Amino acid sequence: MDYQLVCPIPISEYPVITLAHGSGGVLSHHLIEKMFIPAFGNNLLDEGHDGAVFKVKGKQLAYTTDSFVVSPVFFPGGNIGDLAVNGTINDISCCGARPLYLSVGFILEEGLPMGDLWKIVVSMKEAAERAGIEIITGDTKVVDRGKGDKIVINTTGIGEVIEGADISPKNCKPGDTIILTGTIGDHGVAIMSARSGIEFETNIVSDTAPLNGIVDEIFKVTRNIHVLRDPTRGGVATTMNEICKSSNVGIILEENRIPVSPEVRGACEILGLDPLYIANEGKLLVFVPQSEADPVLTAIQKHPSGNHAAIIGHVTADHPGIVRMTTSIGSSRIIDMLTGDQLPRIC
Amino acid sequence: MDYQLVCPIPISEYPVITLAHGSGGVLSHHLIEKMFIPAFGNNLLDEGHDGAVFKVKGKQLAYTTDSFVVSPVFFPGGNIGDLAVNGTINDISCCGARPLYLSVGFILEEGLPMGDLWKIVVSMKEAAERAGIEIITGDTKVVDRGKGDKIVINTTGIGEVIEGADISPKNCKPGDTIILTGTIGDHGVAIMSARSGIEFETNIVSDTAPLNGIVDEIFKVTRNIHVLRDPTRGGVATTMNEICKSSNVGIILEENRIPVSPEVRGACEILGLDPLYIANEGKLLVFVPQSEADPVLTAIQKHPSGNHAAIIGHVTADHPGIVRMTTSIGSSRIIDMLTGDQLPRIC
Repeated sequence: MDYQLVCPIPISEYPVITLAHGSGGVLSHHLIEKMFIPAFGNNLLDEGHDGAVFKVKGKQLAYTTDSFVVSPVFFPGGNIGDLAVNGTINDISCCGARPLYLSVGFILEEGLPMGDLWKIVVSMKEAAERAGIEIITGDTKVVDRGKGDKIVINTTGIGEVIEGADISPKNCKPGDTIILTGTIGDHGVAIMSARSGIEFETNIVSDTAPLNGIVDEIFKVTRNIHVLRDPTRGGVATTMNEICKSSNVGIILEENRIPVSPEVRGACEILGLDPLYIANEGKLLVFVPQSEADPVLTAIQKHPSGNHAAIIGHVTADHPGIVRMTTSIGSSRIIDMLTGDQLPRIC
Repeated sequence: MDYQLVCPIPISEYPVITLAHGSGGVLSHHLIEKMFIPAFGNNLLDEGHDGAVFKVKGKQLAYTTDSFVVSPVFFPGGNIGDLAVNGTINDISCCGARPLYLSVGFILEEGLPMGDLWKIVVSMKEAAERAGIEIITGDTKVVDRGKGDKIVINTTGIGEVIEGADISPKNCKPGDTIILTGTIGDHGVAIMSARSGIEFETNIVSDTAPLNGIVDEIFKVTRNIHVLRDPTRGGVATTMNEICKSSNVGIILEENRIPVSPEVRGACEILGLDPLYIANEGKLLVFVPQSEADPVLTAIQKHPSGNHAAIIGHVTADHPGIVRMTTSIGSSRIIDMLTGDQLPRIC
C-alpha cells in the first residue's frame, strides 16, 4: 500500500513536530489535512467539525475529544480540570447538541502532589454539575518523572443533537450575521500572565465556562442557526478563517464592534499580542440568517454569560475564503489564520 | 462542601503520585475507589466495568476511554498506534458490545520525528480497518521538548451492546467455567525485552490484537455469558481479583492449564517476572456457565486468535473475594492483586 511508503508531509521540509503543530493554526491544519484525514478519512471525519455526528436508531449523537496540556495547571479563574470539562462540553454544544456524558483520561507525572490532583478533581466535579452532565468512565496512567508535565487530561464527550438543529462549518451563507457572546482574549491573557509572572493592575481571569446553557437559549428562539463555534486555539481570527474556507464564503469583521475588555487590551499591548489570535474558553460565535439576528442577540444578552454579546460582522459572497476586517476609520485589511505558535499550551 | 476541604486519600501517607498509581494494581484501585468514584460518582461509573453502558432510544451503547503511554513507542509486534486502537476496541468488546467508532487524541512532544508519527498513524489506520471500525474525530496537542515522552495517545470508543448480552464484572456465579483465549505474558515480555535491550533466542512479540471478532463468535454460540475481560495492566492475577471482589465469589485457577509459551516462561525466569501479573493486549477471559463452556471453547478455538484457548479454572462460593491457584502437585496458594509497579508504562 503506497500510503505506507511515503509520508504525505515532506520530511525534508518538516522533519519533526514543532510547537506550532499544536497551535491550532496553519501547521495544525497541515497535519490534519495532509496526514490524518487521508489516513483515517471517512465521511464523518471529513466534515471539518470540532466533533463528529452519527446516528443511533435515528437519533443523532455528537462525539468529540480534546486533550488539555495547559501550563501552568492552575491559573487565574480556573485550572486544567474545569477547563477540560468545559472545553469538551463546548465542542459538543457547537455541534448543536446537548452534552450528556464525558469520559476522562488522566496522564499523571510521577511526583504530582496528591493535593493538587484532588483540587483538579473537585473542579471537574463542580464543572460537570454546573453543566448538568455526568462523567461516566475514566482511565489513569502515570509516566515517570521528567517524561510528562504534572498532568494532562483528555475528555471525550457525547451529546444528543437538538431536534431540528443542522450545524456545520460548511453551512454559513452570504448575508449571515455573526454574533460573538462576549469579550475576547481573557483566557489566553490569564494564562500568559500566570506563566510570565507578570501581574497586571487589574485581575484578568480565564473565561472558562460551559456554553451549553447559552446554546439552549439560542435554540429556544430559532432552529435556523448555521454555524456555532467556540474560538479557542488560534482565537477569533483562526476560527473565522476555518469557517469561511469550509463554507467557501467571505467574512467581514468590524473592528470597533469586537468586545475586548480594557484590561485585556492593555495587557496585549504590553505583551505584544493581538487579541484576535488569543484563545477563549467560554465564548461562542453564532452565524445566523440576518432576519433572525436580533431575537437571537437579545436571548444571548439575557443569559448571564452573554451580557457583552455583540454583532461583530457578516458573511459575504465576495472574496470567498478570505476574512477582512474594516477599521473604525473605514480602511480594510485581511485577517489571516494564526501562523507559528503565539501562545503554546494555552489549553 | 466538605469534599473540597479534605482530600479523601491521606496526604501524609500518600503525598505524591507514584508509578504504582498507574500500574493497574492496588494503588490504582485506591485512587479510583477513594478519589474518583466519590467525586464523580453516579450509577454508570459505579459499575466497575472497563467501560460504561448507557441507553439512547432503548439502544444500549458502551463507552470507554484509555490513554497509552507505552515505552518504547515501537516494540516487537506493534507500536503505540495499533496498541491504542486495539486496546479500546477490546474494552468495548468486553462490555459485550460491537465497537463502532473511535476518537483519537494525540499528545506529541516537540521534536517527534514526522516519519515516526506517520508510521504510528498508518498502524492505527490498519488496526481500525482490521477491526472494521472508524476513527471519526480527533485532537492534537504538542508539549515542549522534555515535557512529554515522544507521544501519548488517548482513544475513546463507542459500541452497540449485542442484543441479549448482559456482561458485568458483578455477574459471575459459583460454578462458572473460566476460559482464557490464549497464552499469557507476550505483550509485557515483548515490551520488557525492547526496553532492556535484552534479546532472547526466540522472538517474543506483543499479542496486540482486536478481540471483537472472537467476541462475535462467542455470542453466536450463546448469549449466556457472565463476564468478559481482557487481562491488561496487572495481568490475569489482578483481573481475577477484581472480578471475584465485584461478584463476591471465589476463583480457583489451575496452574498447569494456564497457557504460557516456552519463550515467555524462559524470559520471565531470566527477568524475575511472574507471567500471571504481566499485561496482555489480545487475550480474553470468559466466564460462562459450565453447561455452555464446551461449545464456547470450541468456537473460540476455531478462531485464528483462539487456537491456544483453554479452560483455566472455575468460580466457587467458597472464599469469596479470594483467588486461589492449585498447582500440579495439588497444593494451593492465594493469588493477590498486583502491588507496586512490576512493569510501568506497559500500555
